[in-house]
Amino acid sequence: MKATGIVVEYNPFHNGHLYHLNQSRSKTNSDVIVAVMSGNFLQRGEPALVDKWARAKMAVSAGVDLVIELPYAFATAQASDFAKGAILLLDSLKCEFFCFGSEEGSLDSFHHTYDLLSTNKADYNTAISTLMKQGISYPRALNEAYKMISSDSTVPLVDLSKPNNILGYHYIEAAYQLNASIKPETIHRVIANYHDDAEASQTIASATGIRKVLFGEMDLTSIQSYLPNTSITELHAWHSAFNAFGSWESFWISLRYIILRHTKEQLANYAEVTEGMENAIWDAAMKCNSFQSFMQQIKSKRFTWTRIQRMLTHIYIGFTWNELKQMDLPTYIRPLAMSRNGQAYLNSLKKDLQLPLISRVAAHKENEMLMLDLKAANLYYLGLQSTFAQKMIGSDYRNAPIIL
Amino acid sequence: MKATGIVVEYNPFHNGHLYHLNQSRSKTNSDVIVAVMSGNFLQRGEPALVDKWARAKMAVSAGVDLVIELPYAFATAQASDFAKGAILLLDSLKCEFFCFGSEEGSLDSFHHTYDLLSTNKADYNTAISTLMKQGISYPRALNEAYKMISSDSTVPLVDLSKPNNILGYHYIEAAYQLNASIKPETIHRVIANYHDDAEASQTIASATGIRKVLFGEMDLTSIQSYLPNTSITELHAWHSAFNAFGSWESFWISLRYIILRHTKEQLANYAEVTEGMENAIWDAAMKCNSFQSFMQQIKSKRFTWTRIQRMLTHIYIGFTWNELKQMDLPTYIRPLAMSRNGQAYLNSLKKDLQLPLISRVAAHKENEMLMLDLKAANLYYLGLQSTFAQKMIGSDYRNAPIIL
Repeated sequence: MKATGIVVEYNPFHNGHLYHLNQSRSKTNSDVIVAVMSGNFLQRGEPALVDKWARAKMAVSAGVDLVIELPYAFATAQASDFAKGAILLLDSLKCEFFCFGSEEGSLDSFHHTYDLLSTNKADYNTAISTLMKQGISYPRALNEAYKMISSDSTVPLVDLSKPNNILGYHYIEAAYQLNASIKPETIHRVIANYHDDAEASQTIASATGIRKVLFGEMDLTSIQSYLPNTSITELHAWHSAFNAFGSWESFWISLRYIILRHTKEQLANYAEVTEGMENAIWDAAMKCNSFQSFMQQIKSKRFTWTRIQRMLTHIYIGFTWNELKQMDLPTYIRPLAMSRNGQAYLNSLKKDLQLPLISRVAAHKENEMLMLDLKAANLYYLGLQSTFAQKMIGSDYRNAPIIL
Repeated sequence: MKATGIVVEYNPFHNGHLYHLNQSRSKTNSDVIVAVMSGNFLQRGEPALVDKWARAKMAVSAGVDLVIELPYAFATAQASDFAKGAILLLDSLKCEFFCFGSEEGSLDSFHHTYDLLSTNKADYNTAISTLMKQGISYPRALNEAYKMISSDSTVPLVDLSKPNNILGYHYIEAAYQLNASIKPETIHRVIANYHDDAEASQTIASATGIRKVLFGEMDLTSIQSYLPNTSITELHAWHSAFNAFGSWESFWISLRYIILRHTKEQLANYAEVTEGMENAIWDAAMKCNSFQSFMQQIKSKRFTWTRIQRMLTHIYIGFTWNELKQMDLPTYIRPLAMSRNGQAYLNSLKKDLQLPLISRVAAHKENEMLMLDLKAANLYYLGLQSTFAQKMIGSDYRNAPIIL
């Protein structure tokens, strides 16, 4: 069986994801689609709308064959570590290709860009740190440095100011650096910019646009043309049970509590909290009565909104710089959900897997990376602040992969 | 001006407290009553019904002249440290007497008991630890050891199985050990056992009985004969604003969050968490969906309910064994509220005070014991989980003493 891997968050699974899924299958002519998916906290540094089990179910209902959890330590990391964790897992799962959407749409440009940047690595890094010392954010510094390095290139290069191109570049870089057997493929991303409203197109809207509706009028009929029915059903069932979708707004009192339970100095121990951000975070938590006003207070030219949210995620979970340093690569494969086809594929691999396959966690309680995922699951449910969510505490220890 | 000190929690201030207050004044023939009062967390290891400012206001409205905060480190400590902190503050405030209610009602018995126990200290302590090794709780071991030591005494002794006698004994012990100038006085406590229902008497009911009504039908008219009108008014105003009274039930989601954010090993760093209770606490937090069921799960013969609640308070606040060890005696005097009479008394003392008098905290940000009180105030408001309570964050930094 031939498998292709994709890297996803599905927050929630919508028609744009369906397009990417179907294109990935047809373009690589694969029998199996394996998705590595973030758990309950996402790369943008925020809690997912619904938990990983509900999102994995949406994925398999829509045609993904196998959903594997990207451990917390990678799912909430900066792009290069996020990519490294995801590509390692897809490579471990013997996927022949990984296939990503990009604004660029051409693989050659990605390879040229990788060659250029790895050849000029020292100059590139010096330029980035010089620019950052001038107080501009990491992504902007990256982009400026890249312009300087690439100005007299004669081959086509990727535009690294586009979000999906950046991620794609990191996947390819990770595959090179891991010396992986897996090969890249890309699909041209044409519609639904990240911040489009739900109205932007007839059948495809961005996840951001869809979330806006879910947190606003919560009128599922107004977005039903943008999501498979299976996603609508899952979202509806979730909201009936939990009476809330995950967001920093619902987590706010707990986040504020945990910030103010620390001194500023203690906050600086958490992953990604740096350059005095501990002071800004603590001071704003003293003053602000909503997450929105809190973020307005601490936003900064030096750090992207996403990066700041990742700091908050790590504070909320209690994930320290020390732990971050110890977690270099994923140490296990944890399937969340699969189709019969995905199950057959996984069975065919079992003997050859280099990483332990975890379907029940009880036997793996010494694995700190896994325990972190389970902790993140518990703290996610508590953040929802609903009575029903409390009943989910501990469920991640007991859950077996969903087979649909 | 002649002052008498009392040690109080006023959770809430009721007619029994009024009786104690008036008796303390008349029995010692004093001009001024100074109350040392717990902050937002109490010696029973639980959040107060309403914050320290509201309780201090009730106290002064009912006739107390000066309310001083007992710092968190002492207010939530075991009886001997609680007493030491309180007596030191009253002595620092030049009170001639401290006056406590006791089941015993006679000072002589307290002095005899102190003589007996200090003379036989080694035997007494050996007996206590032998008994505790058999798995019985500290208060019971204390009581049994005391019976053994006192069996052939010919002088009247205090019955140390009674809760107010125990506290009184610790006050007297503290006064001896601190070599304080302050002298003891006691009032015979006759009615309203700690666990009586509100119906037990026509005008005096225990705070526990009153709280039962406040958390139950919340019918203030049914308890109005047991509290001064000023307390009723204050409780009513509080509930209208906050829509909640402080209790572990309202703090439960945050408490559960903070427990599950830690490993069991990390929990053992918090003050009073000992002898494997970190395991019981963590395991129960995984299973139980209410504070009540959680406590049922972890209650133990080795520890009193109160002692376990103190562990939880320290976990909630983040107060460690290390901090506990560093905080031996109160390092400041923080008035919360006063009458004009109390203000005149405080002014008359100002030059002679050995401890800094704190009316605005801004100048004292290096004082860790004080910062702990301010943190406890913030985390108290967050535990109430109400929108209004969030607006109180930081108020403890800004509040000046209330003058009524």
